[in-house]
Amino acid sequence: MRMRKKIIGVMGPGKTATREDLQNAEELGKQIAQQGWILLTGGKNIGVMNAASQGAKSANGLTIGILPNQHTTDISAAVDIAIFTDMGNARNNINVNSSDVVVACGIGVGTASEISLALKANKKVIMWNNDSTSQAFFSKLQPDDIYIVHDCSAAIAIIQSIFNQSTNT
Amino acid sequence: MRMRKKIIGVMGPGKTATREDLQNAEELGKQIAQQGWILLTGGKNIGVMNAASQGAKSANGLTIGILPNQHTTDISAAVDIAIFTDMGNARNNINVNSSDVVVACGIGVGTASEISLALKANKKVIMWNNDSTSQAFFSKLQPDDIYIVHDCSAAIAIIQSIFNQSTNT
Amino acid sequence: MRMRKKIIGVMGPGKTATREDLQNAEELGKQIAQQGWILLTGGKNIGVMNAASQGAKSANGLTIGILPNQHTTDISAAVDIAIFTDMGNARNNINVNSSDVVVACGIGVGTASEISLALKANKKVIMWNNDSTSQAFFSKLQPDDIYIVHDCSAAIAIIQSIFNQSTNT
Amino acid sequence: MRMRKKIIGVMGPGKTATREDLQNAEELGKQIAQQGWILLTGGKNIGVMNAASQGAKSANGLTIGILPNQHTTDISAAVDIAIFTDMGNARNNINVNSSDVVVACGIGVGTASEISLALKANKKVIMWNNDSTSQAFFSKLQPDDIYIVHDCSAAIAIIQSIFNQSTNT
Repeated sequence: MRMRKKIIGVMGPGKTATREDLQNAEELGKQIAQQGWILLTGGKNIGVMNAASQGAKSANGLTIGILPNQHTTDISAAVDIAIFTDMGNARNNINVNSSDVVVACGIGVGTASEISLALKANKKVIMWNNDSTSQAFFSKLQPDDIYIVHDCSAAIAIIQSIFNQSTNT
Repeated sequence: MRMRKKIIGVMGPGKTATREDLQNAEELGKQIAQQGWILLTGGKNIGVMNAASQGAKSANGLTIGILPNQHTTDISAAVDIAIFTDMGNARNNINVNSSDVVVACGIGVGTASEISLALKANKKVIMWNNDSTSQAFFSKLQPDDIYIVHDCSAAIAIIQSIFNQSTNT
Repeated sequence: MRMRKKIIGVMGPGKTATREDLQNAEELGKQIAQQGWILLTGGKNIGVMNAASQGAKSANGLTIGILPNQHTTDISAAVDIAIFTDMGNARNNINVNSSDVVVACGIGVGTASEISLALKANKKVIMWNNDSTSQAFFSKLQPDDIYIVHDCSAAIAIIQSIFNQSTNT
Repeated sequence: MRMRKKIIGVMGPGKTATREDLQNAEELGKQIAQQGWILLTGGKNIGVMNAASQGAKSANGLTIGILPNQHTTDISAAVDIAIFTDMGNARNNINVNSSDVVVACGIGVGTASEISLALKANKKVIMWNNDSTSQAFFSKLQPDDIYIVHDCSAAIAIIQSIFNQSTNT
C-alpha cells in the first residue's frame, strides 16, 4: 500500500498571470490543502506559483516549490520545502513527473511546456482558463488526458475521481 | 566575430510522425546541410529525428543527436555526434537552447513541449504542418516568434532572413 | 525571516553500503527528525537512502526522496514526498543544492560525486566513514567546507553550529 | 557498424587550473585532434576547457562544448559546436556520458565530480596530475577504471588500447 502523500501540481503563468488566474490559483491551493493533498509549484514569488502556495498555506497545507535556479532570493514565502534544481525550464519536466495530477491555471509559454510534458508522461491535466484556442489544441492532441474546467470545485471533483479510478484498478 | 557553426534544430514526432512529416524532415535535413548549417535533432532512430538526420547525411552535412538516455541501441545511424543527456524529456530544453533556429516538422506532445520551451527561451520557431489548431495556438501565444510554412524552401528562406537580421544588429 | 524548513541531505552508497553505513544512516535519520529538520535523500529503497529515511520515520520526521527515474517501483517505503527527476545521476546535483547541509555516510562513486558537487556549490559537507583516503582527498580539496565525524552526535552538533553561524551573520 | 565519431572528454579546473594543467590540456587537445577524435569539454573560455579546445583547433580538430548556462558570453572561441544545457554543474553528467573516454587533466571539485560520475557510468578515466591524494582516492574507489599517466603520449596510448579492446569484444 502506498504511504506516500498525494501531490497536486499547479502550474501557470508568472509575470503574465491575469488577476483572474491569481484568484483561481489561490482558491485551488486552498482547496487542495483542505483535501489533505500536497501542493507542488514552480516555487517562485510571482504569479500562479505564488498565489497557489499562499492559498495552500491559508489552509495549513504543505507546499513544495521546484525552483529553476539555486538562489534563495525569489522563492515564494509560502513555500515550505524548496527544491533547487538549477536547471532552468528543464525543471518543468520534474514538476509534472512529480505531480499525481497537473492543474494548468491560465496559459503562457511555460505553462504550455508543462501541459505538453505532462501529456508526454501520460499524466492527467486539468486546464482552467478562458482561452478556447489552448483548450482546442491540447484537447485534440491527447483527448483522453485533458479535462477543461471553469471553477475550482470542478477541478477538485476531477482529481478525486482520478484518484478513485487508480485505486480501483 | 563568432566562429561557432550555426545550428538548426529540427523537432517533430517519433512514432506518430506521418509519411508527409518524414518526407518533409528528410528534405529539410538535406537543405540545411546544403546551406552549411549543422543539424540538431533528438537523435533517435525513429520519426522526424531520423528522417532529418538521414537527409542531412545525404548532402554530407554534420548531424548532432541529443539523446534522452545513455544507451546506444536506439540512436539514428545518421547521427555523427551523440550527446547522451540521460535526462528524458527534459533534454527537450537542451535541444531548443542549443539551436539558433527551431523548425517543428509535424506536431505531437513532445514537439509541442519543444515549441513552448523554444518560445520561453525567445527563440524563433518555424512550424511546418497541416494542423491549423496548433498553428492558431502558438501564433496567438507569442506571435513575433512563430513562422508558419508549407514547403521547405520557405523554411530555408526564413532561417536565412533571421540570420541576416541578427548579423545587422 | 525565512519560514522554509531546514533540510539535511544524507547521501551514501546504495548496493555497496556496509552494515555499519546502514546503522549510521538510520541513527542519523532518526536524530535529524528529532531536531525538527527535514531529511532529504536519493529516495531509493536500498542502502543509506533507505536506512536514513526509515530512521527519520521512526521519529515521525518528514522525508523527501529525489529519485533518478520516473517510476514508482524502487522508492523507499519510508519516503513521504517523492520528486521524480528522471535525470539519472544528474539528480545528485539537485540533492546537494536542495540541502542546507550534506552528510556523506559511507563512500562510493555516487557519494563522491555528491560530495564534490556540494563543495562546488559551497555547501558544508560532513563525512562519516572509516576510509581515511576519502577523508584525506576531500579535506585537501576544500578544507573549510569538510568536517570529519565518527559518531552521530558529532554530526548533529556540527549541523547545529553551522545553523547558528548562518543565523548570526 | 558504428559510424558515429569517437569522442574524448577532457575535464579539468577552470579558474584554478595551474600553468602545467593548461600546457597539458593544450597538448592533449592537439593530439586528440591528430588522432581524428572529437574533443568534448565543458566549453567555457577558461582553464583546461579552453586550453584543450585551443589545442584541438591548432590541429584542425572538431570541438564540442557542453555549457552550463544558456548565454554566449563565456564560451571558448575554440569551440565549434556549443550545446547549451542551462543546467549548471548537472551538465557534468552529460559531459561524461557523452565521452567514450574521459581524461581528467588537473584536479578540483568540479573535476572530482566528473571523475566520480564517469566511474558511476562505468567509463574509463585517465588522470593526469601531480596530486597523489586524488590518485590514491579514485584508484581505490574503482581500480579497474582508473589509469594514471604523467605525459600526453601515455594518455593517447591508453585511449587507443581502450578502443582496440572494445572493438575486439
